[in-house]
Amino acid sequence: MGRISLLLLVSLLPLLASGASFPRSLALGHLSALHMPARHISRLTVTRDYTTHYFRQKVDHFGFDINKKFKQRYLIADKHWKKQGGAILFYTGNEGDIIWFCNNTGFMWDVAEEMNAMLVFAEHRYYGESLPFGSRSFQDSRHLNFLTSEQALADFAEIVNYLKHTIPGVKNQPVIAIGGSYGGMLAAWFRMKYPHMIVGALAASAPIMQFENLVPCAMFMEIVTRDFKRSSPHCPENIRRSWGVIDKLGASRSSLYWLSEALHLCSPLTDFHDIQMLKDWISETWVNLAMVNYPYECNFLQPLPAWPVKAVCKHLKDPKVSDQVLMLDLFKALNVYYNHSGQAKCLNISETTTSNLGSLGWSYQACTEIIMPLCTTGVSDMFEPHAWKPKELAEDCFKQWGVTPRPSWISTMYGGRNIKSHKNIVFSNGELDPWSAGGVTQNITDDLVAINIQYGAHHLDLRSSNPLDPQTVRLARSLEIRYMQKWIKDFYANFEKQY
Amino acid sequence: MGRISLLLLVSLLPLLASGASFPRSLALGHLSALHMPARHISRLTVTRDYTTHYFRQKVDHFGFDINKKFKQRYLIADKHWKKQGGAILFYTGNEGDIIWFCNNTGFMWDVAEEMNAMLVFAEHRYYGESLPFGSRSFQDSRHLNFLTSEQALADFAEIVNYLKHTIPGVKNQPVIAIGGSYGGMLAAWFRMKYPHMIVGALAASAPIMQFENLVPCAMFMEIVTRDFKRSSPHCPENIRRSWGVIDKLGASRSSLYWLSEALHLCSPLTDFHDIQMLKDWISETWVNLAMVNYPYECNFLQPLPAWPVKAVCKHLKDPKVSDQVLMLDLFKALNVYYNHSGQAKCLNISETTTSNLGSLGWSYQACTEIIMPLCTTGVSDMFEPHAWKPKELAEDCFKQWGVTPRPSWISTMYGGRNIKSHKNIVFSNGELDPWSAGGVTQNITDDLVAINIQYGAHHLDLRSSNPLDPQTVRLARSLEIRYMQKWIKDFYANFEKQY
Repeated sequence: MGRISLLLLVSLLPLLASGASFPRSLALGHLSALHMPARHISRLTVTRDYTTHYFRQKVDHFGFDINKKFKQRYLIADKHWKKQGGAILFYTGNEGDIIWFCNNTGFMWDVAEEMNAMLVFAEHRYYGESLPFGSRSFQDSRHLNFLTSEQALADFAEIVNYLKHTIPGVKNQPVIAIGGSYGGMLAAWFRMKYPHMIVGALAASAPIMQFENLVPCAMFMEIVTRDFKRSSPHCPENIRRSWGVIDKLGASRSSLYWLSEALHLCSPLTDFHDIQMLKDWISETWVNLAMVNYPYECNFLQPLPAWPVKAVCKHLKDPKVSDQVLMLDLFKALNVYYNHSGQAKCLNISETTTSNLGSLGWSYQACTEIIMPLCTTGVSDMFEPHAWKPKELAEDCFKQWGVTPRPSWISTMYGGRNIKSHKNIVFSNGELDPWSAGGVTQNITDDLVAINIQYGAHHLDLRSSNPLDPQTVRLARSLEIRYMQKWIKDFYANFEKQY
Repeated sequence: MGRISLLLLVSLLPLLASGASFPRSLALGHLSALHMPARHISRLTVTRDYTTHYFRQKVDHFGFDINKKFKQRYLIADKHWKKQGGAILFYTGNEGDIIWFCNNTGFMWDVAEEMNAMLVFAEHRYYGESLPFGSRSFQDSRHLNFLTSEQALADFAEIVNYLKHTIPGVKNQPVIAIGGSYGGMLAAWFRMKYPHMIVGALAASAPIMQFENLVPCAMFMEIVTRDFKRSSPHCPENIRRSWGVIDKLGASRSSLYWLSEALHLCSPLTDFHDIQMLKDWISETWVNLAMVNYPYECNFLQPLPAWPVKAVCKHLKDPKVSDQVLMLDLFKALNVYYNHSGQAKCLNISETTTSNLGSLGWSYQACTEIIMPLCTTGVSDMFEPHAWKPKELAEDCFKQWGVTPRPSWISTMYGGRNIKSHKNIVFSNGELDPWSAGGVTQNITDDLVAINIQYGAHHLDLRSSNPLDPQTVRLARSLEIRYMQKWIKDFYANFEKQY
């Protein structure tokens, strides 16, 4: 598995659960390692007051041969909901357990009272507990056949419909879709495809343009690099240099052993393949850090200090260290990400998220519809150069899942850059977030607006308000609320006109 | 098969080819009668100058397990197309052979020069030559699984995309969808779901509201009745009376024989079942006549005189005839529809369209997505009273195709009455057309407009201009052209702004 394959499969959200590292590779042959982490995740401390529900959802919305249904999970929090003049905020679940998203989307909880809103969090099919074929859901391409964004949107439409018909008062209220990352893409697409269901969408850090050649494939890693450079001017330079040093040390058995010790690896490196794995793992770590470069200490993907990229680059600021010292510094830098708690005894580069259902589903989606070209130049970024290689991806995907990617489909289905006929979508992006490369960062029309958040990482705006939040994200949130309130007001104004 | 089942399955267009009667019933057990009429139809006199093309289309747009492709047919006529400032008029094919639609959509041919337009006629999957599994396409629900409106729209999107990428000049031109009947529904839905692909849609006689309880189920047959009443005040009264007379005559063997003779039936009636079939067949005839009540002699479904309902009712105008005379008059009336040419030796009530691929596909669609509630009261209409019975439909559909109808799906998918967020769709309806019951007959917004055509039958506006056309349809066509020209102008204005 070449280095580039890793990049191709970068998940929008390195999935779930503390201790899980980045979904690193196609994980060929790892299917047997499938566990049922949903239960594990469901035991996460529940900090929010919601009720859990299940909707009997059709497995296939677009065909009639298979009439099977499955139980799709969704959560409802209606403490602040008002039957008169209220609204429904509907989280379009993405690639993971919905409880985790529910607990990490504090923004919705923060605004519920002000908006008299009911919160609904709908789990994406094939993630968390919402498995169409139970433990066999990931068995083969036949069972995975119903894992597409179109099916997911249809699920959401059915749930909204069901709520409107079963909870008195909901029918005549506006519904707003909210989502982050892939969930933000879904929120935007939900509004585009089902504008009769929802009055608007807040799509946070949603890289809906990260397809085909809509944006340069190198931009993503350039943003990662820029983040590191801002934290410390020589940091990217040291990281760029580190690849060569690792290669050099990897060339002899004795230096390889030294490197393993220097980096405190749990298993010593033994060959060229291990060196490649090590570099992949380090690259992923830098990407993750750029995504979760939040202004306060928190535990999103890992327990991390405030401004973790700065904390990392503190160890990589000196441009003139020897190769050996660079490696010792590299360990300290990695340790920021993997050992903020101070509990880890060693660093485990073979740690993958194949033990997490989410990553399995995502690796399938990244092999079918969600084909997001990423590449590195080694010049404009701090990584080793790798071209975007769709042919290799196609071969790998066929080997792993027996499917062939359809790289142009998402643009055909959702419009690519030509989305100006839609209305009432707010696209927010953090300028620190590498996914902003594929985001909508300029207003398209007055009703299709971009909110760019300086000092913001991956959907910072969707997180709970925090005393350490920069002013920019506070402003972004208040703008988002203003847009949502406008949609709600327009809904009621039209509604009164009708009746 | 009860009488009502027939009503449930009324095809939007009684399908194709002269001599074919209305698709009358679920046609249980008739699968073995499958012929390949596509070839037969393709031999129709071709009066238009087009080229035939085939696109390798994915059988399943919404899943990746089946990677099979099939050849979808489309026609191109580019005689009047201008590479600079031109437009693409895209016919969204409906339930039949595309050549037949191409030859019966003269409006597009009439406006091509004025609009510098390329005409494209795309065949709907599972009709004509565009069979995903060849002769096995209708074999069972597994092979029919990909016959849905969503798949058809995705086909159209892929073809538009392909034309834009392969024919120099098309990429930067506006595409307008045009369709009639079910094809009109598809044109409207195409604009709703793929507004990035087409700048607008002309949806002629498209009953997009004939679903769930969006309109009263009795309205359709009330319009049929109204048409007959307008042609001759006592005509509906005589038709309403005819059912009882048929029943009475059907009660004894000798009068049954007399009735068969009086109606010149090819096979004599023998029992109660035959009587029911006879009444179904007659009802369908009246519905068809209302649909094709055109102001000039033509051959759309059958060779017919101008204003055929008037011609029919001429024989049913006397309110005081005896039972026997009523039956003799009934024959004369039916003969208008079945024997305008004077060639038919007898009337064949067992004639169905199961020998036509179109009707097979349609009966499947009418058992899955396209669930259009129709009913009769026997009071507000001239038919025997029949309630809308979804349970019976579901049972029949399961028996025939092994599928379960999903009556609310179309509204969930396409919005039901709540479509006001869309733009640039013209809905035209003929007030004589029973399908106008489920049509959009009032402006929804300035950009979502209704054109109602007095004296117009089923998508009269899409037919070639004719000296006998009423002024109303001439006006409708010129309005339609004006809207389309506005969409084109807006497209180029925006385009210039962009570049």
